[in-house]
Amino acid sequence: MTRSVRRTGRTAVKRHPERADYDRAVVNAILDEALVSHVGFAAEGQPYVIPMLHARSDDTLYLHGSTGSRTLRALKAGADVCVTTTLLDGLVLARSVYHHSMNYRAAVVLGIAREVTDADEKLHAMKCLVEHVLPGRWGDARQPNEGELKATMIIALPIDEASAKIRTGPPADAKDDLSLPVWAGVVPFELMRGDPLADNEAPVPGYLERFLAG
Amino acid sequence: MTRSVRRTGRTAVKRHPERADYDRAVVNAILDEALVSHVGFAAEGQPYVIPMLHARSDDTLYLHGSTGSRTLRALKAGADVCVTTTLLDGLVLARSVYHHSMNYRAAVVLGIAREVTDADEKLHAMKCLVEHVLPGRWGDARQPNEGELKATMIIALPIDEASAKIRTGPPADAKDDLSLPVWAGVVPFELMRGDPLADNEAPVPGYLERFLAG
Repeated sequence: MTRSVRRTGRTAVKRHPERADYDRAVVNAILDEALVSHVGFAAEGQPYVIPMLHARSDDTLYLHGSTGSRTLRALKAGADVCVTTTLLDGLVLARSVYHHSMNYRAAVVLGIAREVTDADEKLHAMKCLVEHVLPGRWGDARQPNEGELKATMIIALPIDEASAKIRTGPPADAKDDLSLPVWAGVVPFELMRGDPLADNEAPVPGYLERFLAG
Repeated sequence: MTRSVRRTGRTAVKRHPERADYDRAVVNAILDEALVSHVGFAAEGQPYVIPMLHARSDDTLYLHGSTGSRTLRALKAGADVCVTTTLLDGLVLARSVYHHSMNYRAAVVLGIAREVTDADEKLHAMKCLVEHVLPGRWGDARQPNEGELKATMIIALPIDEASAKIRTGPPADAKDDLSLPVWAGVVPFELMRGDPLADNEAPVPGYLERFLAG
């Protein structure tokens, strides 16, 4: 059965509503593929947008950082937050300037976050963050010690009031433009993983080899 | 001579200040390489973060969209805005979970925007946006007609109060961890351009061939 995120007047997509999707599986897939979110909050009326690693666990989105982070402290204090993540899939080159576009998949999550203070959930969230970036890494790297746990703040945002917006496919030129002798089409983008730059002589672990191949 | 952006209490980088850069050339280079920004504004206290194409012309950042766009209408009305763009350069895999990081280059521009209503500046901004995505495209695609110009809103934000934040290089493990037998290093990322998917039979123009080659 399909589960939906909560569509509200704040998350409903108004421009190109045909690109909107409120299916939780669609929102989750974008959050799971993207590494970085842009986290928005306002302080004294001024919005700030800060890039952060995120990770999802069921219907919860985790963020982390230093306990000194201004962004995390605002979120902990109950600021309204907007977390947006965007995967850029390609350039859409239309025959007319006007119909140029991009193919993309974006997810937006609104809400109020909470600080994770339970020791078990905190460790779980940290594991989610590490495994989101590189599956297999958590069990290999040195685990956080007490001082490191204390210096780290984990913030949890429910994935509830949310939406996805997706554009795919070829350019959508006007009918009158279709015969113009201008190359039209899509240039796909992909985030490639380059050759790793080793900092020590340790052998490359299997999970990293799979990631690099993948 | 180096020109700086304006460093204020709002743009000064507080976490890892050694990663901050207020040199205008550094901020500009990030804005010029990145295609997409995350544009933050607040409405009735709720922040929204919306992905948008941007382009730079001298010390001005241009955004565009439909005249019906809620984001652009808020900006036109004088909302405080934060435009953030992030280039993800790689994963930083440390020996300890705690010192994992990412290599990235991010630029943040704060301010109040204005709508571009002058016809010449509007066309200039549209040219900047198209040429930012694909140099050479503006002179090839069909130019905007009167109706399309009317339907497009251009917003200009001065690149004044701003900052860059950059992390490069290998992991920064604690001295006691350096001998751990855990692979450590950097996995670089690069946004690759795939084979174009043509929508017509027009020949691939030279500027697109050069773009695809990289």
